[in-house]
Amino acid sequence: MTSNLTHFDAQGQAHMVDVAAKDVTHRVAVAAGRIRMQPATLALISSGNAKKGDVIGIARIAAIQAAKRTADLIPLCHPLPLTRVTVDFELDEVASAVQCRAQVETLGRTGVEMEALTAVQIALLTVYDMCKAVDRGMVMEQIRVLEKQGGKSGDWTATLET
Amino acid sequence: MTSNLTHFDAQGQAHMVDVAAKDVTHRVAVAAGRIRMQPATLALISSGNAKKGDVIGIARIAAIQAAKRTADLIPLCHPLPLTRVTVDFELDEVASAVQCRAQVETLGRTGVEMEALTAVQIALLTVYDMCKAVDRGMVMEQIRVLEKQGGKSGDWTATLET
Amino acid sequence: MTSNLTHFDAQGQAHMVDVAAKDVTHRVAVAAGRIRMQPATLALISSGNAKKGDVIGIARIAAIQAAKRTADLIPLCHPLPLTRVTVDFELDEVASAVQCRAQVETLGRTGVEMEALTAVQIALLTVYDMCKAVDRGMVMEQIRVLEKQGGKSGDWTATLET
Amino acid sequence: MTSNLTHFDAQGQAHMVDVAAKDVTHRVAVAAGRIRMQPATLALISSGNAKKGDVIGIARIAAIQAAKRTADLIPLCHPLPLTRVTVDFELDEVASAVQCRAQVETLGRTGVEMEALTAVQIALLTVYDMCKAVDRGMVMEQIRVLEKQGGKSGDWTATLET
Amino acid sequence: MTSNLTHFDAQGQAHMVDVAAKDVTHRVAVAAGRIRMQPATLALISSGNAKKGDVIGIARIAAIQAAKRTADLIPLCHPLPLTRVTVDFELDEVASAVQCRAQVETLGRTGVEMEALTAVQIALLTVYDMCKAVDRGMVMEQIRVLEKQGGKSGDWTATLET
Amino acid sequence: MTSNLTHFDAQGQAHMVDVAAKDVTHRVAVAAGRIRMQPATLALISSGNAKKGDVIGIARIAAIQAAKRTADLIPLCHPLPLTRVTVDFELDEVASAVQCRAQVETLGRTGVEMEALTAVQIALLTVYDMCKAVDRGMVMEQIRVLEKQGGKSGDWTATLET
Repeated sequence: MTSNLTHFDAQGQAHMVDVAAKDVTHRVAVAAGRIRMQPATLALISSGNAKKGDVIGIARIAAIQAAKRTADLIPLCHPLPLTRVTVDFELDEVASAVQCRAQVETLGRTGVEMEALTAVQIALLTVYDMCKAVDRGMVMEQIRVLEKQGGKSGDWTATLET
Repeated sequence: MTSNLTHFDAQGQAHMVDVAAKDVTHRVAVAAGRIRMQPATLALISSGNAKKGDVIGIARIAAIQAAKRTADLIPLCHPLPLTRVTVDFELDEVASAVQCRAQVETLGRTGVEMEALTAVQIALLTVYDMCKAVDRGMVMEQIRVLEKQGGKSGDWTATLET
Repeated sequence: MTSNLTHFDAQGQAHMVDVAAKDVTHRVAVAAGRIRMQPATLALISSGNAKKGDVIGIARIAAIQAAKRTADLIPLCHPLPLTRVTVDFELDEVASAVQCRAQVETLGRTGVEMEALTAVQIALLTVYDMCKAVDRGMVMEQIRVLEKQGGKSGDWTATLET
Repeated sequence: MTSNLTHFDAQGQAHMVDVAAKDVTHRVAVAAGRIRMQPATLALISSGNAKKGDVIGIARIAAIQAAKRTADLIPLCHPLPLTRVTVDFELDEVASAVQCRAQVETLGRTGVEMEALTAVQIALLTVYDMCKAVDRGMVMEQIRVLEKQGGKSGDWTATLET
Repeated sequence: MTSNLTHFDAQGQAHMVDVAAKDVTHRVAVAAGRIRMQPATLALISSGNAKKGDVIGIARIAAIQAAKRTADLIPLCHPLPLTRVTVDFELDEVASAVQCRAQVETLGRTGVEMEALTAVQIALLTVYDMCKAVDRGMVMEQIRVLEKQGGKSGDWTATLET
Repeated sequence: MTSNLTHFDAQGQAHMVDVAAKDVTHRVAVAAGRIRMQPATLALISSGNAKKGDVIGIARIAAIQAAKRTADLIPLCHPLPLTRVTVDFELDEVASAVQCRAQVETLGRTGVEMEALTAVQIALLTVYDMCKAVDRGMVMEQIRVLEKQGGKSGDWTATLET
C-alpha cells in the first residue's frame, strides 16, 4: 500500500489514472451492506417476497443496472466491460435487517470494487424507497468491500469486526 | 402510517404511484451518513483538503450530480425539478470518519428523501474510490434520513440512536 | 389533424416545437403491444412467474424506467414530469404471446404517447432478452397507442383492427 | 437450445450471466421491423425525405444512439464495445409502411441481437413521434431478429412467416 | 451584477443554488459559435447538405438532444423543463466556417443560457467528428451567449466584437 | 487523407463505421481551448482557486466525466474504454482567459480526439456556468485538437496559427 492518493498528480490535481500498462486479468470484487428496519417492515418484505410485492426482486434489478453505471456516477472511475453481476439478499430477523451482497467480475485492467459497492448502495436505497411509506427511520450500514481478487495488488479479504 | 407498501397495487405489481392529486409544495429532505476509515487515511484527506488533492470537493460534486439522477437510478422514483442541493462534510477525528450531510429541496408533488440519500451514498462512494488505494477496509454506515418537511404527511425528524 | 409534420419548420429543419403556450393539463396515454413466441416459451414464463424466474416482473421495471428516459431516447420529445406509470402484462395462450399494456400520466404541456410506447417497447425487448436463449424467433407486433386524454386535441381512441 | 432461462440462477434469481469464459469473436446481428401507417402519411415522409423534413435521417440517428445505450435500457444485458452500426429504411407502398433494418457488430464475448432490436424499436418510435400529429393510429409490427453470426451457438437465420 | 460567484457559499463550498423563491417566467437564451475549416471541407458539407451525407442535419439532432442533457453535464445546473429548442446553421464561405445558433426556451425559475451553449458546443463537435477524416485542424471559436430574456435580472444582449 | 466523409455510405446515409478490422493500439489525443473573460472575473477565479470557491477543480471533474460520455453525446462515435484522462488549466492574464488542455488515452480500435475535445468543451462550459452571474459576455475560442498518436493514420500535430 502506498501512502498517497493515486487519483491526484504531484500538483494535487485530480485525474483518471493511467491503466494502460496494467494487465487484463480476471478481476472479482464482493461487497456487502444492510438496511436495518422495524420488525414489522421486515415482515412486510418477507411476505411480499413470497407472494406479491417483490421488494427484493426490484432491488436486485436496480443494483445490477447501477453496477453498469458506476463510471458515470463516480467521477474518476474507469469504464469497464463487466462480465458478471450477481446480487443476493438475506432477511436477517435477528438484526431486523435486509442484508445485501453483490459480486461483480470483469476481464479488465483495473478492479471492480466500486461496481460492487455501487450495486449494494443502490439495492439498499431501492429497499428504502419501497418501504419508506411505512418506516422512514431505516438505517443503512456495514457497507464495505468483503474481498477482491485479481490484479497486481493481489487478493484481499476484509477483516470483519463491526 | 399505512401498513402497505404503496409501490405495489392490489395484485402486488410494482408501479410508479399516482401523484397528480398531491399538491405542489416546498419540500425539503436532509440525509446523512459517514465512512469510517483508518486515522492515517483521515489525515491524508484532511491535509489534502487544505492544500491539494481535494477529496471532499470532488465528493461534493459527485453527490450533487447524483441527486439529479435519482429517478434514473431508483426504479419507482418520480422525476422532480430540484430547486436546491447542498452537501456538507465534517472530518470526525473521534470516530475516524468523514461525515456527510445532504439537503435537497424541490417545489413538487412528492418528497425528496431519495434524492438526499442518493447524494449521501454517492458522496461516500466517491470518498471510498479516492482513498481505496491506501485503505480498502473503509466502512459506510449510519446512512439515513434525518428530517423531511412539506407534503401531506407533514414534517418528520429522525429519532437518533445508533 | 394538420397535413404537415410539426417537428419541421418551414425550411424543413427539425426542431423541438414550442409548447410554452399550451396549457398544463392532466394528460393520459395508453399504449399496448405483444411478443409472440413458441408455446413452450410462454409456458416457461408462466411457470417462472408463479414460482421463480420472474420475467414479467423484470420487464415491468425496465418499462417504468424507460418511460422516464423517453426524452433522452426520442430526439425531439420534450422532457415531462411523469406523475404515474403502470405496466400490465397478460399471458395470451391462444395467441401464444405476452401482451403488454402501459399507461402513463402527467400534468404537463404536451402528451405522453411516446412515454407509453417506449415503456411497451422496452418491456417487450426485455422479455425477448430473457427468453432468447430458448426461442430466438419471437416477434413483437401490434404495438400502438390505444388512447389518449387531455390537451387541446382532445381525447382519442384507436380503431382496432389488426 | 436449453430449456431454461439463463438469466436466472437455480433459485430463480435474476443475474447478469457470466461471459468471462466465452471467446471474443466477431459477432453480427440483424434485426428488422416496420411501422404501418396511412398512405398519406407515407407520402409525407417520402416527399420530406427527398426535399425537406427528413424523418428517416433523424430516425437513423436515434437508432444508432439507442444501440449504444442498450445495456442501459435492458436490465441484464452486458455492455459491449460496438464496432459497427448501420440502419436502413425502405418505404413500402404496398404495405403502406416504413420498413427498418439494423445491423450491429462487435468483437465481444456475447451477441448483439438486443442492440440490433433496440435500434429498430427506437427508429420506429422516432418515426411515430415525428408523424403522430397527422396519424395517431400507426402500428409497429414484425419486429424480430433476422440473423446472427458468431459465438459458440453458431449462425442462425429466422424462418420467416408473418 | 454581484462581485461573487453564486455557486459557492460563504465557506467557498459549491452548491446548487436555491431557486425556489424565483418566479416561473418565460425565459429565452440564444447562443452561437462557429467551426472554422478548410474551404474544401466546407464545400463537402455544402454538397452533402444539398444531396446526401447530411452533416448539418445530424449536428442539429445532436444539439437538441444535448440541450436536454445540460443538467447532467454541467455539475451545478438545475434541471429545467425545456419548452422549445431550435438550432440553425449557416455556411459562411468568407470565414470558411459553419456558423451555429441555438435558441432555447423554458417556463422555469432560472435561465437557459447553459442549455443554449451546450447545444452549440455539441453541434460543433458533431461537425468536427463527421469531417475529421478530411480535416483534422478545424477550430471552434466565437462561442458565446448572444442574448437572454426573462427572469429578475432582465434582458441582456451581447456587445459583439471578436 | 481521403476526400470523402467516412461517416456516410455510398448512398449518403449516416452509419457508425466498421472498426473491427482496425488494430487495438495505444491511442492518445490532446485538445485545448480557452474561455476569455473580463480581468475581474479571472481575478475571482484566481483567488477562489487558491483559497475557496474552486471553479477550476469543479471544471476538471466535469471534463473527466464528459470524456466518458462522448459516445453518448456525439451520434456516430464508437464507445471506447478510456485508460487515462488528464485535464489541465492555466490562468492566462495576458489574454484574460482560462486555458484548458485535455489529454485522453485508450487501448482501442479508433482514436480519442472526440473525447479530448468533449472534455475541453464541457470544462469551458462549466467555467462559464460558475462565473456567468458576474460576466455574461465570456467567449470560448481556439478549441481544437493539438495532437494525436496511434492508429493507422499515424501521428499528427496541429499547425498553430490563430
